[in-house]
Amino acid sequence: MTEALFQRVQASFDRQGTMALIGAHLAHVALGEVDITLDFRPEVSQQHGFFHGGIIATLLDTACGYAAYSHMGEADGVLTVELKTSFLAAAAGPWLRAEGRVRRAGRTLTFCEGSAYVGHGDAARLVATMSATMMRLQDRAGVVG
Amino acid sequence: MTEALFQRVQASFDRQGTMALIGAHLAHVALGEVDITLDFRPEVSQQHGFFHGGIIATLLDTACGYAAYSHMGEADGVLTVELKTSFLAAAAGPWLRAEGRVRRAGRTLTFCEGSAYVGHGDAARLVATMSATMMRLQDRAGVVG
Amino acid sequence: MTEALFQRVQASFDRQGTMALIGAHLAHVALGEVDITLDFRPEVSQQHGFFHGGIIATLLDTACGYAAYSHMGEADGVLTVELKTSFLAAAAGPWLRAEGRVRRAGRTLTFCEGSAYVGHGDAARLVATMSATMMRLQDRAGVVG
Amino acid sequence: MTEALFQRVQASFDRQGTMALIGAHLAHVALGEVDITLDFRPEVSQQHGFFHGGIIATLLDTACGYAAYSHMGEADGVLTVELKTSFLAAAAGPWLRAEGRVRRAGRTLTFCEGSAYVGHGDAARLVATMSATMMRLQDRAGVVG
Repeated sequence: MTEALFQRVQASFDRQGTMALIGAHLAHVALGEVDITLDFRPEVSQQHGFFHGGIIATLLDTACGYAAYSHMGEADGVLTVELKTSFLAAAAGPWLRAEGRVRRAGRTLTFCEGSAYVGHGDAARLVATMSATMMRLQDRAGVVG
Repeated sequence: MTEALFQRVQASFDRQGTMALIGAHLAHVALGEVDITLDFRPEVSQQHGFFHGGIIATLLDTACGYAAYSHMGEADGVLTVELKTSFLAAAAGPWLRAEGRVRRAGRTLTFCEGSAYVGHGDAARLVATMSATMMRLQDRAGVVG
Repeated sequence: MTEALFQRVQASFDRQGTMALIGAHLAHVALGEVDITLDFRPEVSQQHGFFHGGIIATLLDTACGYAAYSHMGEADGVLTVELKTSFLAAAAGPWLRAEGRVRRAGRTLTFCEGSAYVGHGDAARLVATMSATMMRLQDRAGVVG
Repeated sequence: MTEALFQRVQASFDRQGTMALIGAHLAHVALGEVDITLDFRPEVSQQHGFFHGGIIATLLDTACGYAAYSHMGEADGVLTVELKTSFLAAAAGPWLRAEGRVRRAGRTLTFCEGSAYVGHGDAARLVATMSATMMRLQDRAGVVG
């Protein structure tokens, strides 16, 4: 079932032009959990050579949206009602990982939280958090954003 | 002075790899006001062919950040402390305009609000709003994200 | 119709123990617009003798919730999905006015913005803003919070 | 040291008229951690007899503010820059506990997260979360809100 879920999310992810443009990859899918990764390159930077905050928010939004989607039916769609991102540290490092987690799945609305980490030597550093509300669109297959 | 301000913001904008990757343009700069525009193409979409929410948040973040920056000194930098975006309508249309406005400029923190519109026939439709806190980095030239 | 709307909101407002405890008053009701006022007294302060931020958020939440409710049917209820409040200035003054405004009313979700002012000499000073998502509960009369 | 910290927070808490008005109690203080509790009574309700969302936000704000304060010097003050609260379930129960936790303590800004629980039989139910930015006011003793 987890494999089927991964395929379902991957198929939707592949239809998002933005994920390809940015160069993001789907790294983990489980019930209520989705991780997305991105290697650094100048095209995703702000002017100091760090990951751009908007790119971080985009990955967290997508990870949270698919985490919510994992709780829904195949015919459903999901859209972002609102998101808040707090930036805790400069996002300087070779890679970024955005983790989206469902905190409460409801019939219509699902509340998610996300954390973004950048590589920092052998470890990872928390650089941003997200709090987001996702909405189920009944019988309208599709996703996020 | 407005021309000098535009040049200062444009120079910083040009150093953001993300703005070039997305294809965004600086459309308006005044004290406490910055607009950024983007034409639609599949590379900035989610899977239904609408502008991706993360792209909308990225433009609003950048517009708000530079709006705050317009109140600061040349040697200062600005970073995003946190942002919240609410999505009000499907962002389907040929173009997107993100407007960042300073609501209160403080010594350390500046509070901004943003509105994003997409073209809708001859008119524009409000598709998203932002509420964001920006921070001044004294004597550390640079910007946003 | 405006009088009937005011009565409907006032009746619900009167059933909120919190509004009576705080000493808040319903000052204005129109379609998509609700204002609530509160005179200062030590019981609504933080330790410096200013209005407590939580009290300000409570009034803004209630004003936004009833503004959303004004767009709904008599049998409907409304609840707060999420709210964000930014504090822009010290809330020192003899009175507080919280204004809730609907920015977009939808079938299920309504997006509101709020502004809180405190008296400042002969004028009013903006001390806080709110961005909030309200949800309609079909055929479940009731309100806010 | 923990006892001294508790005394310092308690002294400030006691100067907040709002905490006394509501009937809230300081239940736990440690470095980066503060819990506040409140027994239900009609005076803190919305019209269905549940805890009012504004009351929940007020307790979470105060818990997060003091959690941030626990990382600061005795002469410092702390104020709330912004807060976001998401409401996950109806807050119906005999008591409420708001937990504020520091996620990252910085020199000027401290990022906190909070969780609010209500009693539910022998257990507790998560009813709301908070994400908040707190600011240190150097050498200006005082607190929150």
